[in-house]
Amino acid sequence: MQIELINTGSELLLGRVLNTHQQWIGKKLADAGYILSSQVTVPDTAESICDAVQKALGRADLVITTGGLGPTSDDITREKISAQFNKPLQKNEAIVEHITSFFAQRKRPMPESVLVQALVPEGALVFQNKYGTAPGLAMSIPSERSNIGNSQPWLVMLPGPPRELRPMVETYLLPFIQQQFPLKEEFHCRTLRSTGIGESMVEDLLLENLRPLMEQGLDLGFCARTGQVDIRLCGYGPEILQKIAKAESLIRSEIGKYIYGTDDDSIEKSVVDRLIAKAQTIAVAESCTGGFLGHHITSIPGASKVFLGGFLTYSNKLKEKVLGVESGTLGKYGAVSKEVSIEMAEGARLKSEADHALSITGIAGPEGGTEDKPVGTVWLGLSSIGRKPIAIRKFHPYDRGTFKQATVNQALELIRRRLFQDK
Amino acid sequence: MQIELINTGSELLLGRVLNTHQQWIGKKLADAGYILSSQVTVPDTAESICDAVQKALGRADLVITTGGLGPTSDDITREKISAQFNKPLQKNEAIVEHITSFFAQRKRPMPESVLVQALVPEGALVFQNKYGTAPGLAMSIPSERSNIGNSQPWLVMLPGPPRELRPMVETYLLPFIQQQFPLKEEFHCRTLRSTGIGESMVEDLLLENLRPLMEQGLDLGFCARTGQVDIRLCGYGPEILQKIAKAESLIRSEIGKYIYGTDDDSIEKSVVDRLIAKAQTIAVAESCTGGFLGHHITSIPGASKVFLGGFLTYSNKLKEKVLGVESGTLGKYGAVSKEVSIEMAEGARLKSEADHALSITGIAGPEGGTEDKPVGTVWLGLSSIGRKPIAIRKFHPYDRGTFKQATVNQALELIRRRLFQDK
Repeated sequence: MQIELINTGSELLLGRVLNTHQQWIGKKLADAGYILSSQVTVPDTAESICDAVQKALGRADLVITTGGLGPTSDDITREKISAQFNKPLQKNEAIVEHITSFFAQRKRPMPESVLVQALVPEGALVFQNKYGTAPGLAMSIPSERSNIGNSQPWLVMLPGPPRELRPMVETYLLPFIQQQFPLKEEFHCRTLRSTGIGESMVEDLLLENLRPLMEQGLDLGFCARTGQVDIRLCGYGPEILQKIAKAESLIRSEIGKYIYGTDDDSIEKSVVDRLIAKAQTIAVAESCTGGFLGHHITSIPGASKVFLGGFLTYSNKLKEKVLGVESGTLGKYGAVSKEVSIEMAEGARLKSEADHALSITGIAGPEGGTEDKPVGTVWLGLSSIGRKPIAIRKFHPYDRGTFKQATVNQALELIRRRLFQDK
Repeated sequence: MQIELINTGSELLLGRVLNTHQQWIGKKLADAGYILSSQVTVPDTAESICDAVQKALGRADLVITTGGLGPTSDDITREKISAQFNKPLQKNEAIVEHITSFFAQRKRPMPESVLVQALVPEGALVFQNKYGTAPGLAMSIPSERSNIGNSQPWLVMLPGPPRELRPMVETYLLPFIQQQFPLKEEFHCRTLRSTGIGESMVEDLLLENLRPLMEQGLDLGFCARTGQVDIRLCGYGPEILQKIAKAESLIRSEIGKYIYGTDDDSIEKSVVDRLIAKAQTIAVAESCTGGFLGHHITSIPGASKVFLGGFLTYSNKLKEKVLGVESGTLGKYGAVSKEVSIEMAEGARLKSEADHALSITGIAGPEGGTEDKPVGTVWLGLSSIGRKPIAIRKFHPYDRGTFKQATVNQALELIRRRLFQDK
C-alpha cells in the first residue's frame, strides 16, 4: 500500500516553522503497520498544491495533506481541491454550529471569515475537530493510476495546527485507514532504545547475528540521535512476534546494559517509572543546563510523585548559599570540577530530603573555556542516601543546544543505571 | 531559480527522527534570497533516492540531498549517485587523513568501514566536514531540462547529522550558491516577531494597510506558532529596503506593543540582552514548568551575566523551605493561586538577591485538576526590586508540552514588557 504525505505551507519551505507533522504522522502510521512511501512539502500556491495532489493520487492509495484549511488568505487547500476535482463546496450546518460555539465558549469575538471552514466538498466525509475550528475532510477520488488496482484512491485533508491534527489522526484517521485498507497480514513492531553506545558499534555487534532472522522477513533498522541509538524490529506475518522476540533476546545478550527501554519509552520515563515503583524521590542541582534536566523529568506525567524539586545554581554565590558548596572547594578546584559536582549533589539531596540528587556543572560555551577545561567540559554528580556520591566527567564540544541535550541524557542515564542495579 | 531539497532516510518516514534539516536549510537559504521550491523525503532505497534525484535534476537548478553519506549499511547515497551518473568513486587521501586523525584525537578505535567516507565521485567538489567524518560533495550534472536554460544543474550531497551539516552549509554551501547563482536583484528580508495576539487578528489589522506596498512587490507572510505570530517582509529590487521600512513602520503603529523583536530574536534573547544592557539580574521560581523557563533563559549565550539561578519548587514543602512561602498561604489559597505565585516570586528574588524574579505555579495535567482550577490553569508572578509584585492567571488546557511552552512564553513576555516599559 502506497501512502503519500503532502505538507502544504510556504512557511515550511522558508524555514519559519518546523515540520513536526512528518514525524508524528509517520510514527503513528508505522506503529500500526502502514508505512509512508514518501513525503513532500509544497508552497501555498494553487498550482503547487493541485499539482502535488494530482501526482500523488496517480501513484498512491492514500494521500494525506496537512494545512491550508484555516480562515486566513493563504489557506486555500479546501477551495482549490474542491475546484480541481469538481466537488462543489456546501455549507455544513453542524460545523457552523461547532465554530460558533467554539468562539462563544472562549468569549472571543467571531470574525465572519472563520465560517469558510464550515464549507465541505460534495460527498466528503467530515472528521470533527474538537480542538479547533477546521474539520478534516476525506474524499474518494477517481484517478488514472498506472501501478495499482481498480480501487479509487482516498484524499484526506487535515488541519495544520498540531494540537488539532493529532487527536484527529488518532480518533478518526487511523480507524478510517484500518477500515478502508485492512492489513493482509498480522503486523508487529518493537523498538529497543539504547544510550551510551555509538551507531557503528551497535551495527557491528548485531548485524551478523540478526541476519538469519532478517532473511526470514524481520525488518531491522537503526536510528541515531544525540547520544542515543534506537533499534527497530518489525515485520508482517503469522510468526513475526516470535522472530521479534528472538531478535530482542539476541540483542539484549549483546548490548543489554545500554538498553534503557522500548517503543515510546524515554530515559526520563524509565527513571520516573522506576522511582515510582521504588517509592523513592529525586532532586536536581543544575548549573550550565539551567533547568533542562528538571524539564525532562517533569515532562513525564506523574513526575510530581517523585520529583521534589531542583536548584538552578548558576552563580557561585547561589551554589554556596543554597546548596552549601564550600567556598574553599570552589576556590581550589573551580566550579566545574568533580569536587563541586559532588557537593552540589549532596547539597541538593540534603536540602530537598530526596533519596537521590543529580548535579550538573560545566561550560556550555561559546565563552568561558580554559586550556584545562575547554568549552564542552562537564561534570555530573549523583548522591543517593546511604551511598558514597559519584561523579563523571564528560566532554561535548558542540553548540549549546547539543551540549545541553547530551549532558542531560547522561545525567538521566547515571541515575537510571543506579536505580536498575540496586535491588 | 529552482532549488529542491531531498531528505533521505527511512527513519524520517517511519517517524523515528524529526526532520530539522528542512527548517534549518530553508531558513538559511531564504534569508540569503534563495527560496526552496519544494522538499521531499524518500526512503533509503537505491530506487527511491536515484528516482528522486533524477526527477529533481530535471526541474531544478540546484538539488540538495541530506543523509546517506555515513559508514553504515543503510548509507548508500554516495555509491548509488556515483553509479547513476557514471562518476566512479576515487579514494581521496586528504579525507582518509582527516578521518584517521578524527578518531585518533578522540582516542576511539577506528572501524575500517568508516573509510568508505573518503571515496569521492570523479570530478566532485569536496566540502570539508570539521565536525564529523563524511565530507559534503557537489557535482555538476548534465540533465535534460524542459523549463530551464542551458546551464547544467548542480547536485550537492550533505551529511545527515545536524552538527556536521549546519557548519558545512554556512561555510561552504552558501558561498558556493552565491558564486554559482548570483542574485539578479538586491534581496532583503525582515521578520517582525509578535506575541500575545492571534494570527487572524494580526492579519485583520494589517492586510488592508499593507496592500499598496504588496502591489509594489513587497512579499508579506504570517506564521503562527504556540502563542506567537511572525510577520515576514521581503522582496527583491533596488527600492525594497524602503518598502520594508515603510511596512515595518505601519505595522509598529498598529500592533507595536506586541512586537518583541526581529529576525532571529526570541523573547528570551530580547530579555537577556535587555538585562545585560541595564546591568540587572534575574532569577526564577518554577513549579509545573519544572525548569523549562530556566532552560529558555540559559539557552542564550551570555545568560550567565544576568541569570543568577532558579528554584524548582515542585513540592509544597520546598516552596516553604526554600522560597519562604507561608504555609498559611498554601493552606488558604492552594499552591496554584495568585498569592502563592507572588510569594514564590518574592522569595526567589530575595533568596537570589536578583533585581527581578519570575514565578510559575500551575496544573500541567493530565491529573490534578479541580472544578475551580481545571488542568491548564496557571499563575505567573513577577517581583522586581522596589516594585509591587504582580501576578496574572492564564489557562492552557492542552497537552503537557504545549502547556509548558505557552506558559514559558508568557512568563518571558511578562518580564520583557516590564524591562522595556521601565526607563
